[in-house]
Amino acid sequence: MVTLRVFQRQQVEALTDLDQISELLMQPRTLIWLDLEQPTATEVALLHNEFGFHPLAIEDAIQTHERPKIETYPGYYLIIFYSIEYDADKRALHFLPITLFVGANYLVSIRTGPVRHVQQTLARWQGNGYVPGYQISSILYALIDGIVDDYFVVLDMIGEQIDDVEDAIFQRGRQEIAGEIFTLKKDLLLLRRIVAPERDILNVLLRQEIRIFQPRELTYVRDVYDHLVRITESIDLYRDLLSSALDSYLSLQGNQLNQLVKVLTLWSIILMACSLVAGIYGMNFVLMPELEQPWGYPFALSLMITIAVSLAIYFKRRRWW
Amino acid sequence: MVTLRVFQRQQVEALTDLDQISELLMQPRTLIWLDLEQPTATEVALLHNEFGFHPLAIEDAIQTHERPKIETYPGYYLIIFYSIEYDADKRALHFLPITLFVGANYLVSIRTGPVRHVQQTLARWQGNGYVPGYQISSILYALIDGIVDDYFVVLDMIGEQIDDVEDAIFQRGRQEIAGEIFTLKKDLLLLRRIVAPERDILNVLLRQEIRIFQPRELTYVRDVYDHLVRITESIDLYRDLLSSALDSYLSLQGNQLNQLVKVLTLWSIILMACSLVAGIYGMNFVLMPELEQPWGYPFALSLMITIAVSLAIYFKRRRWW
Amino acid sequence: MVTLRVFQRQQVEALTDLDQISELLMQPRTLIWLDLEQPTATEVALLHNEFGFHPLAIEDAIQTHERPKIETYPGYYLIIFYSIEYDADKRALHFLPITLFVGANYLVSIRTGPVRHVQQTLARWQGNGYVPGYQISSILYALIDGIVDDYFVVLDMIGEQIDDVEDAIFQRGRQEIAGEIFTLKKDLLLLRRIVAPERDILNVLLRQEIRIFQPRELTYVRDVYDHLVRITESIDLYRDLLSSALDSYLSLQGNQLNQLVKVLTLWSIILMACSLVAGIYGMNFVLMPELEQPWGYPFALSLMITIAVSLAIYFKRRRWW
Amino acid sequence: MVTLRVFQRQQVEALTDLDQISELLMQPRTLIWLDLEQPTATEVALLHNEFGFHPLAIEDAIQTHERPKIETYPGYYLIIFYSIEYDADKRALHFLPITLFVGANYLVSIRTGPVRHVQQTLARWQGNGYVPGYQISSILYALIDGIVDDYFVVLDMIGEQIDDVEDAIFQRGRQEIAGEIFTLKKDLLLLRRIVAPERDILNVLLRQEIRIFQPRELTYVRDVYDHLVRITESIDLYRDLLSSALDSYLSLQGNQLNQLVKVLTLWSIILMACSLVAGIYGMNFVLMPELEQPWGYPFALSLMITIAVSLAIYFKRRRWW
Amino acid sequence: MVTLRVFQRQQVEALTDLDQISELLMQPRTLIWLDLEQPTATEVALLHNEFGFHPLAIEDAIQTHERPKIETYPGYYLIIFYSIEYDADKRALHFLPITLFVGANYLVSIRTGPVRHVQQTLARWQGNGYVPGYQISSILYALIDGIVDDYFVVLDMIGEQIDDVEDAIFQRGRQEIAGEIFTLKKDLLLLRRIVAPERDILNVLLRQEIRIFQPRELTYVRDVYDHLVRITESIDLYRDLLSSALDSYLSLQGNQLNQLVKVLTLWSIILMACSLVAGIYGMNFVLMPELEQPWGYPFALSLMITIAVSLAIYFKRRRWW
Repeated sequence: MVTLRVFQRQQVEALTDLDQISELLMQPRTLIWLDLEQPTATEVALLHNEFGFHPLAIEDAIQTHERPKIETYPGYYLIIFYSIEYDADKRALHFLPITLFVGANYLVSIRTGPVRHVQQTLARWQGNGYVPGYQISSILYALIDGIVDDYFVVLDMIGEQIDDVEDAIFQRGRQEIAGEIFTLKKDLLLLRRIVAPERDILNVLLRQEIRIFQPRELTYVRDVYDHLVRITESIDLYRDLLSSALDSYLSLQGNQLNQLVKVLTLWSIILMACSLVAGIYGMNFVLMPELEQPWGYPFALSLMITIAVSLAIYFKRRRWW
Repeated sequence: MVTLRVFQRQQVEALTDLDQISELLMQPRTLIWLDLEQPTATEVALLHNEFGFHPLAIEDAIQTHERPKIETYPGYYLIIFYSIEYDADKRALHFLPITLFVGANYLVSIRTGPVRHVQQTLARWQGNGYVPGYQISSILYALIDGIVDDYFVVLDMIGEQIDDVEDAIFQRGRQEIAGEIFTLKKDLLLLRRIVAPERDILNVLLRQEIRIFQPRELTYVRDVYDHLVRITESIDLYRDLLSSALDSYLSLQGNQLNQLVKVLTLWSIILMACSLVAGIYGMNFVLMPELEQPWGYPFALSLMITIAVSLAIYFKRRRWW
Repeated sequence: MVTLRVFQRQQVEALTDLDQISELLMQPRTLIWLDLEQPTATEVALLHNEFGFHPLAIEDAIQTHERPKIETYPGYYLIIFYSIEYDADKRALHFLPITLFVGANYLVSIRTGPVRHVQQTLARWQGNGYVPGYQISSILYALIDGIVDDYFVVLDMIGEQIDDVEDAIFQRGRQEIAGEIFTLKKDLLLLRRIVAPERDILNVLLRQEIRIFQPRELTYVRDVYDHLVRITESIDLYRDLLSSALDSYLSLQGNQLNQLVKVLTLWSIILMACSLVAGIYGMNFVLMPELEQPWGYPFALSLMITIAVSLAIYFKRRRWW
Repeated sequence: MVTLRVFQRQQVEALTDLDQISELLMQPRTLIWLDLEQPTATEVALLHNEFGFHPLAIEDAIQTHERPKIETYPGYYLIIFYSIEYDADKRALHFLPITLFVGANYLVSIRTGPVRHVQQTLARWQGNGYVPGYQISSILYALIDGIVDDYFVVLDMIGEQIDDVEDAIFQRGRQEIAGEIFTLKKDLLLLRRIVAPERDILNVLLRQEIRIFQPRELTYVRDVYDHLVRITESIDLYRDLLSSALDSYLSLQGNQLNQLVKVLTLWSIILMACSLVAGIYGMNFVLMPELEQPWGYPFALSLMITIAVSLAIYFKRRRWW
Repeated sequence: MVTLRVFQRQQVEALTDLDQISELLMQPRTLIWLDLEQPTATEVALLHNEFGFHPLAIEDAIQTHERPKIETYPGYYLIIFYSIEYDADKRALHFLPITLFVGANYLVSIRTGPVRHVQQTLARWQGNGYVPGYQISSILYALIDGIVDDYFVVLDMIGEQIDDVEDAIFQRGRQEIAGEIFTLKKDLLLLRRIVAPERDILNVLLRQEIRIFQPRELTYVRDVYDHLVRITESIDLYRDLLSSALDSYLSLQGNQLNQLVKVLTLWSIILMACSLVAGIYGMNFVLMPELEQPWGYPFALSLMITIAVSLAIYFKRRRWW
């Protein structure tokens, strides 16, 4: 799906004739935003024909397994950024790459699926009234800032789940904790892998090799950079917390095992000792004096009780319960 | 709650007319300290109208989830610092952010709750007599130095609890050790996350891009920096100690388990062996010569005792107890 | 096996007279590619006689245990690169070193076995029509790019196996998981040991001390470099995942042990308690009132059932099952 | 306790009139060494009045919880160094801080307790004959070199204890190993925390901002620096060894547990199986043909022996002992 | 033992008059190699008297606990290098330090025991014919290259033992694995501690502050440096492999324990359940209807078999074997 917006003479127009692009790019005070969703081969060819992008840059743009990166080509940046969504039902993260070609007077965005921030910003451009200054830098900032702000939402959800895991370990008796910790750790690993190179991207933009942002706008870019730093730190904190949580869980598991074995040992010894007494008086010897005495049976029972109580006291003293 | 202090012509005045601020800032030899506790929207608007702060800086100031940071704007610093209090009852750390706008002749402090150091310093400014030189740098130093000094108090409390944990592991038999270690580790992680960026803040202040401190005052700033270094090292030491403590705990747990299983094995074998003897002489075969003998019963008992003692000696030799 | 290709006057020729090489090297607009597979001593001597390579460089070239490296000699690079193949049957990685001497107008490739990319590129050079510009840089790029692209194939296979391991841990009950994790970790360690120095090689080539690549070709070299960065990151991610997986496995193992010991304890206590009742009424005392009662037997059985049910309820309440 | 040594006109004098110090400092070719042990408030005041030290420097000097550090003030260094002693009885390290103010022609040493090296060097200065060149640098070198040399003694003792721990793990059966490893690790952590900043101190001295050492003396300073590097490396080696030792211990513990459970399982099964046979022939059925046979009793006993031997062979085959 | 070789006028002479050395050093085109094995005090005095070495350098040379290092003195290097031998019988590494004083026209080697490489090189110098160019650099290179080449031998032996350990863990049932892993880890730690500073030594030599090597010889020095890099990487790889191996071992141990406890639980329950049946029919109640029936005994036996088989099937279904 292709959407082409052209800003010219104070107006935004939605064009469909894509072959005009190279001409429009020549005109002064004209801004172009081309958005491609799951581009076809012909649409990809446009990138070369109309914009003259480098073949490798185009290859990167249509591959979906690239990491976030920025590359400086003569006159434009290639930026690969990731939008992240958290699917609450499946408890799974979804990573949606979006590729941006950013020049002084144009922006090309390419994506394999719907990225909410693109649609919203597109709508705003077309919408009546509000357009943020009609600068390429405004669109770029709006997109990146929106995407990064969503990371906080994802992080908060992960943070809540970590709280749940902690509760589960120390209070309730949930057993599937190991699997949850593993999933959360994996999410954080994947998240970190996206966020770390994105910090580098912001750094490159701040260096201003190609002049996209006005000097006074750089404060905003630095603000996004700052958010990414904060996110990275939270990810690291969460990873440390999960490691500590797993350690604690293992240690509590060990504790529980020791308690179980204590119970087992204690009762085995008591019951086996009493059974031995019963076994002895169940022997069939002709001559067993106790058997004939009237006090024999109560004596045997008392013997058992005495043994059981003594053992119980002994283990109590050794703090077995 | 708003407090405005103006130092002018050798006197400190408490003003309430906040609209004068921009005029006061123009006057030479005038110092202004504006303190806002949980500022309202109108009070926040002052920051823009009277001081002309950057919108992003103001946004940072009123958000409460920012990390400690310093940002250099033209003519002023934005500093976010954290005061830490330890709630001894709940054994919990409380982090109270305080945002400072520091210019050459003014200081604006914004906070969401009471920060003891702010109140004390405010009182001193207003109080009769003692004012530390009437410099913006003096207030800033007093605040930061006081806040950082409190970290030592928090650290000492954590240090004492770690000592307790060590004692608990190696001497007493407390079981809830895993939870305590986890909580302490988490506290240290959160603390580190505050202290590390605060070192960077001090570093920026030392670099003197905006001249707040006199050269001869820098020694004091370096002293606070030094304290933060020492705190960071203590945090790292404590984390290493806790890791070692947990390792030791796990190993002692394993030891205890082995002891338990030894006891279980030992007594199971002895008691089951004796029971087997009793079981054999409890069989109902018509022809069991021993049963008729007068020495049968004593023989069976001695057999059991012999077996028990032999096994006990055997296990003793193999150092099972 | 020796293959010599000479490009001269718009044509590629396959020569066999190796003694001409030094003369050919003198001629302008002549490119030479000498490929040696398991070179004999005489063929190795050529490297010194015809090309004048440094003895140490030649020694490195024919040793097979070198790590990937690049060395800058006057006028040429010595590059040792590794082709990696994954043997799906034995689940084993094979590392095939290939040594390259790269000068401005010649390339010498030495290898101990068949490297698919060499054969393919050789065939293309000789083949009718397609030759990529007849530059040394084109061959070098074709080789290195092809080799690095294959790493992704290897990585994907490892990634799939890690997915299998995760499934096996959390869903199915496979036991040999530890061995598989160990093998995968080892593979990743060996892979990392190849990839890390190869990044350095690409970096040296980008620095252009010896001019092999045209400026406009550097984008391609940077692209390969980028791929190696991405591979390194994937390796690190996979190692972290495997560590997490092993941790989870250990914790699940501990869980399972606790469950087992619970079952053991529970049933031991119930069965031993009932046995004790049976043992008591199996004693041979003359005077045991219950024995003579008609309700004695049902009473004993009910007693056993009562004990069993009470214990079961007790353990149920303590969440033992 | 105050000791004042003044070197003037080729002689060392012990003075007690501390108010002269500021005058003496003015005189050419005069060296002063002031040593304060647990200084009183009046003695501390001297530091300010006679030497003119910065208040913060004096504060650092009399606090006892500072880390080792060096600070460059105009014309003098403030150095905090630690002497370490090993109390062999209590197996505990003692850290004794010593603060030095080092100027071109004076040295002030402040300590809270007796530091052997200070006393020895003081004695030498006063003693007849031997004075090492009467330089401030000579005293400083003598002190620091002596203190650092003692670290080796401490390290060797720790090294021996680690050897003991290793022996204990792999040969003897000591149980309290976990506590010992923990104590040793803690000692090493504390030691490292002293040694690491002391390396920085030597580095600052080598940089010669304030000229204390003659160029030809720098070799000696570098030698002390070298010793600290060696000590740091040993500490790291020892920590790694202790970690390995603990891992091994845990693994041996696991081994032992498995052996115990094998013994338990083996004997439980054998004894319970034999008991079952005895139990069966202890049933009171009227019609149990075997009971009446003369071979019944031997048959039952043989059956038990057969079962026991078969199980023993079976477990033997599965390598259970 | 002292060996003195002097190269002068195209000849190598073995001299014994050590007092001439200082004179010989003055003569042009004269090279001296002095080798001291366990030098006496008089021989050590030579180092000062004839060569004029710095006292600290001499002290380092005769101490045996120094780490590998290089120190630049005016006109000569002090190098401490380590020769490593692997004692296959005791499975132990031996570290033999060798100290070298390297000047432009002399080399002094000091060692506490026989170092094979020294003897071999000495022999070659004296031997008829082959002398590698009669340069100090040639001897130095021959020594260092030979020593470093031996590291590969040691590493290969360690590598083989690691392979053995892996086999032992996953295939055979050896128990003493923990001790072996610990020893190997310790060896690697010690080895790393030697190799890492030796890399720095080579780096200093490459920097050529004192001109020992000709520019064209530097390639050889870089080759040795390269070998040390490769050795360091192998050490790190081996350490990672050992850590993985230990993890796997612990996990397999846990597996085995779970299996053991399963066997124990399974058989305990089956045998105790059957015993309970036998115990019930062993009770002496007057009125137990089953006892009088002819089918009583077979019924009891069938009951036991039914219980045993049902439990076996139940556990089978839950995948307990």
